[in-house]
Amino acid sequence: MTANFAALLSPRSVAVVGASPDLRIFRGRTLKVMLGHRFEGRIYPVSRSHDEVQGLLAYPSVAAIPEPVDLAVLIIPAEYVADELERCGAAGVKAALVLSSGFAETGTPAGNELQARIVAIAKRHGMTLCGPNGEGYINTAASLCPTFSPVVERPTMQLVPPWRTSGHVAVVAQSGGMGFGLFDRGLPREVPFSYVISTGNEAAIETFEIVDHLLDEGKSDVFLLFLESIRNPKSFERAASRALAAGKPIIVAKIGRSDAGARASLRHTGSVAGTYAAYQSAFRRHGVIEANDIDEMVDLAAAFSLHRTRLPAGDRVGIGTASGGGGGWLADICIGAGLTVPLLDASTRALLDQTIPSYGTSQNPVDATAQAIVQAGYSELIRLIAGSPEIDSVIMIVSARIVASFEKEQHALVEVARHSPKPIFLWSYTLPHPDTSALLSRCGYPLFTSMQGCARAIAAMARYRTIRQRLLGGATGDDL
Amino acid sequence: MTANFAALLSPRSVAVVGASPDLRIFRGRTLKVMLGHRFEGRIYPVSRSHDEVQGLLAYPSVAAIPEPVDLAVLIIPAEYVADELERCGAAGVKAALVLSSGFAETGTPAGNELQARIVAIAKRHGMTLCGPNGEGYINTAASLCPTFSPVVERPTMQLVPPWRTSGHVAVVAQSGGMGFGLFDRGLPREVPFSYVISTGNEAAIETFEIVDHLLDEGKSDVFLLFLESIRNPKSFERAASRALAAGKPIIVAKIGRSDAGARASLRHTGSVAGTYAAYQSAFRRHGVIEANDIDEMVDLAAAFSLHRTRLPAGDRVGIGTASGGGGGWLADICIGAGLTVPLLDASTRALLDQTIPSYGTSQNPVDATAQAIVQAGYSELIRLIAGSPEIDSVIMIVSARIVASFEKEQHALVEVARHSPKPIFLWSYTLPHPDTSALLSRCGYPLFTSMQGCARAIAAMARYRTIRQRLLGGATGDDL
Repeated sequence: MTANFAALLSPRSVAVVGASPDLRIFRGRTLKVMLGHRFEGRIYPVSRSHDEVQGLLAYPSVAAIPEPVDLAVLIIPAEYVADELERCGAAGVKAALVLSSGFAETGTPAGNELQARIVAIAKRHGMTLCGPNGEGYINTAASLCPTFSPVVERPTMQLVPPWRTSGHVAVVAQSGGMGFGLFDRGLPREVPFSYVISTGNEAAIETFEIVDHLLDEGKSDVFLLFLESIRNPKSFERAASRALAAGKPIIVAKIGRSDAGARASLRHTGSVAGTYAAYQSAFRRHGVIEANDIDEMVDLAAAFSLHRTRLPAGDRVGIGTASGGGGGWLADICIGAGLTVPLLDASTRALLDQTIPSYGTSQNPVDATAQAIVQAGYSELIRLIAGSPEIDSVIMIVSARIVASFEKEQHALVEVARHSPKPIFLWSYTLPHPDTSALLSRCGYPLFTSMQGCARAIAAMARYRTIRQRLLGGATGDDL
Repeated sequence: MTANFAALLSPRSVAVVGASPDLRIFRGRTLKVMLGHRFEGRIYPVSRSHDEVQGLLAYPSVAAIPEPVDLAVLIIPAEYVADELERCGAAGVKAALVLSSGFAETGTPAGNELQARIVAIAKRHGMTLCGPNGEGYINTAASLCPTFSPVVERPTMQLVPPWRTSGHVAVVAQSGGMGFGLFDRGLPREVPFSYVISTGNEAAIETFEIVDHLLDEGKSDVFLLFLESIRNPKSFERAASRALAAGKPIIVAKIGRSDAGARASLRHTGSVAGTYAAYQSAFRRHGVIEANDIDEMVDLAAAFSLHRTRLPAGDRVGIGTASGGGGGWLADICIGAGLTVPLLDASTRALLDQTIPSYGTSQNPVDATAQAIVQAGYSELIRLIAGSPEIDSVIMIVSARIVASFEKEQHALVEVARHSPKPIFLWSYTLPHPDTSALLSRCGYPLFTSMQGCARAIAAMARYRTIRQRLLGGATGDDL
């Protein structure tokens, strides 16, 4: 039987079992978080002790709800979960999201037994089971957030930048903290997330089954995965191959590379981390991109989200800057990341030299000096550098502190981003003002604050294109 | 003749040569930036065309200023600098800060000649010369900012957190952009800067002469250097040895490691980058710490600034977390950075187990679960983990989004930080709210957002302690 992902992730009706008016506890916070977003389906609190919870009529049991329930969210102590799942199954509930902890991750026979029991119950009733020991999920298109994560607690917050029509990023994470942490860090950079799904112990459905479903659904173009283990190698191979064929990169943080990390995974979600070398080779074989930490994941997501259909054709980077020191530093870092920073061709240099004062240089890094930025604008410099046949991508170094510097050339920036066949990236050496960050994303530029993050993202994109071409044969890098 | 650093960096009277009312140009902006801070000395605009500039009486020449001038700031076209320096010398000006570009960095004989001329003039008059082609400096204690950097443009901004009484960080950078960029990034993390000094072409005084002076002055405890070249190996050795003996770490970004970076340095400040291997060995010999990028420099500055007198005695880290996934991930990253994450001893685990629910674990990473954080608080968990004889430092994983989570245990946090002989670090998986960031710094904890940055800072601190002990002989790690 295949899982009912529609009921799990896009339900029309949701029962919140254990809903409470007490906002200090998870059972109260989960309902509050859900009510803070404009979900258009129905939400039914289920409570034994209250007739009304947070302004909604509450039901004594799932069976008492007046319509068929697609999804039941269970936030009750572990020892009550099995019986409640039985009741859900009997009432025809199609999917269950178990947020409760106290199962296989305890490392005890009792915990393992409890987990086996709930899996059996779900199976018997044909219910799709997510968790236990998860933190819930976000479905941004449905404005549905069955989770107690404080990251989506602010009511009326915008879950996805409305201007983005493609390049959506799905997070699937065994760790709720890290999954929602990725969302929290990506949002101010205008990364459009489709989903954040915390899978917890993965007692029934696992990460790559979800990826496979999301590929079918077609609303996600980039995948960020926090993996403690691959539970089912076949499922991994299937999802990874399909994603690669579709040009939808999978970016993975594999936990448990070290003994201490593996020990943590075992007690976190009952995962046996396995040999890291075996994982690495499986990742390489399928073009899966490994990220080193949470920042690098967000950097990769931001880059692929905007430039997935415009991957660099090679490793040659053109760098433009008003800070000569910044240009040299970034060149060193690009080369350290496996990229090259070649001299530009004579005709591009001649064009640049018309704009750059004598104390700057058109070599590459192109030190345009602050004077040329003020006179010609970032957009013109980007356009000129991107025109060089010697390079495959451009990094423009900016100071994104002051939004006014970019507002005045906003239209030119949009035009350059739209017409350049090469991907263009920005690195800001000052901390970006949130308005600048938003403006530049809207103009079509991924904006980085990390030098290494920027360089590694470009290197990963160039590598991904090469791997796709090699694995799939023929030119597939830019025919997405 | 030794340089007059007091006149250069702590002048009582400053002439701004080329001051203008036009705030769109550097000559206008520099004066405006200076007037935006509470400098207690006198500022004299020098202008040929205005009697008054930005509300101040202007003088037609330096000679017309009614008192001896300590420092002249020159922001006039390169071709006029030599003549102006002659006038400054004749008028008894003690130091000159030349912000103008168009000297050796142009790579032209004319530029080189012009630079040689101004060096000769300064020498003849006994004037200390900083620059040319610099971006000026910040002296936070004097609230003096002779620079056009937008980073200190906001009037009445606080240049240094007033609660910090030690651990001040001096930035000396050939690149103004990068130097002021470090300040911009460190300030929201409450890093107390003493100086940011942009040295430009270093025609006369160079980085390590300045470091040597700052060591004499005693107001700086950590040095962040952006180096394109070491102009004078003797000066480097002297300053680096003195800093090491004093336990004042020097953190360096060496530019020009790659061909492209070296090419950029040559055209940026006329620096010949030299063989990177030779630099590396010189750095290692003197305990100078190399940083990989701008973020890592700020991470190291934040860590050393607070924990310079409490360096980890070894590489064993205890990790506390409410996110099991975050703990595993950070453990992997710590081990990747050369640290270890050993199991805690039985008696510490017994104490922890009294607080942690069954679905958490006291092993290390200590997955305390959100429940234990709510009940016992971060401070109690930190205290317990830090008490283990198996570890030398602690990283507590937090979500620093909501300041209220920390406000309630603020006093306990202060107590733990104050009494722990081991350094404690925080990593936030969500983006910190600025108030939380400030609060936690004030409590005595360096707060990181980068996992790698946190791990690498701890590894660098442990290494620095070891190197000091080896190079200086005997126990010098904690007798600062």
